[in-house]
Amino acid sequence: MRVAVKVRLKRSILDPQGKTVQQALQHLGFEQIREVRIGKLIELEIEEGQNRAETLRMIEEASRKLLSNPVMEDFEIEYPGETP
Amino acid sequence: MRVAVKVRLKRSILDPQGKTVQQALQHLGFEQIREVRIGKLIELEIEEGQNRAETLRMIEEASRKLLSNPVMEDFEIEYPGETP
Repeated sequence: MRVAVKVRLKRSILDPQGKTVQQALQHLGFEQIREVRIGKLIELEIEEGQNRAETLRMIEEASRKLLSNPVMEDFEIEYPGETP
Repeated sequence: MRVAVKVRLKRSILDPQGKTVQQALQHLGFEQIREVRIGKLIELEIEEGQNRAETLRMIEEASRKLLSNPVMEDFEIEYPGETP
């Protein structure tokens, strides 16, 4: 099973990398792009054969412990076939 | 309008960062996670008031020219209210 974990900087945290990209886009003529924020898209291939609740708990724990920095980032777990 | 651009390494390209994370997860006991690949989640805030086709074309051009490296990466554009 393939699961995606979206890791984003919290809204209150400045994103200088995103700001730089936004300015570069502006210089290239993409003036309609007002803001850019850059997060991580972490895709996990998970071994099947477990119940969904257990898998969800495990992925959430991994996201909290290793995939994100809870002080600065939020994460969102996306399962296959789920609307974003 | 908020649009997300998912940038992933092409399948044929090794992802050492993802491999390292996968090994770290394994050491922490997350043995069901078989593979990890790390991409970028670029979120754009776009000024409204244009037709959708024009906006799509503009975002695709920005993704190709600046947000991704076409040699090593693929990108996918996600519009609000769209199934992934």
